[in-house]
Amino acid sequence: MYVVIVGCGRLGTLLADGLSVAGHDVVVIDRHEASFRSLSPEFSGFRLTGDATEYALLKSAEIERADCLMATCSEDTLNLMVAQVARHVFGVACVLARVHQPAFGAIFKNAGIEIISPTQLALDAFRERLDAGATKRP
Amino acid sequence: MYVVIVGCGRLGTLLADGLSVAGHDVVVIDRHEASFRSLSPEFSGFRLTGDATEYALLKSAEIERADCLMATCSEDTLNLMVAQVARHVFGVACVLARVHQPAFGAIFKNAGIEIISPTQLALDAFRERLDAGATKRP
Repeated sequence: MYVVIVGCGRLGTLLADGLSVAGHDVVVIDRHEASFRSLSPEFSGFRLTGDATEYALLKSAEIERADCLMATCSEDTLNLMVAQVARHVFGVACVLARVHQPAFGAIFKNAGIEIISPTQLALDAFRERLDAGATKRP
Repeated sequence: MYVVIVGCGRLGTLLADGLSVAGHDVVVIDRHEASFRSLSPEFSGFRLTGDATEYALLKSAEIERADCLMATCSEDTLNLMVAQVARHVFGVACVLARVHQPAFGAIFKNAGIEIISPTQLALDAFRERLDAGATKRP
């Protein structure tokens, strides 16, 4: 599959490396070229430096043929912007966005974007482990 | 259950609010008193301002009778320190720590601390959604 990843922070890097090694075609976009240094030597995809909210940059990433766009930036507003453009301007079928502020979740969902909230996932994991510990006790 | 939460950021706040509303006894610790402003009016636990790596502060949180300690700070090193003290000095049975740097995971595990990595959880979620999207396609 052809996957466009916006943001080459910790999450974006792990996704880009993993998907590239798994045989997918990957383009990773970041505003700062230095961010690409965290990619592993095994990463065989493309690196694009620039602002992913700019139409021209997304065009040069050939986003219209992407199977999936993953917005992984640390700013929710940037992820929302990029995800909406991918979904509604370029018609990308699978658009996934990281969301930090739980309050933003509804806005993304209304825009037809699937959200992944690391905070919510961690919250659920903490609660599950606590419950599991409670049932183990005599 | 009696739960001590270290760090009142986004995750710590959601945990403290949720566990308090669920009927657990909760103490939340943060270095900055202003952090407690994010707690909901329904939070009925205690707030302790100070450095959770200090023995005296953990004593005043009555950590030795805690069923669970949750280290949710944004700094992995702080979480590791607090979690180790809770586990090995105060003998807390259930010690859970948020870890950001995947490379730190092994250190926590060697110290007998369960780790929860929001980045890893998000990574898994992105990969699962991509795979689910792929199987849906004709």
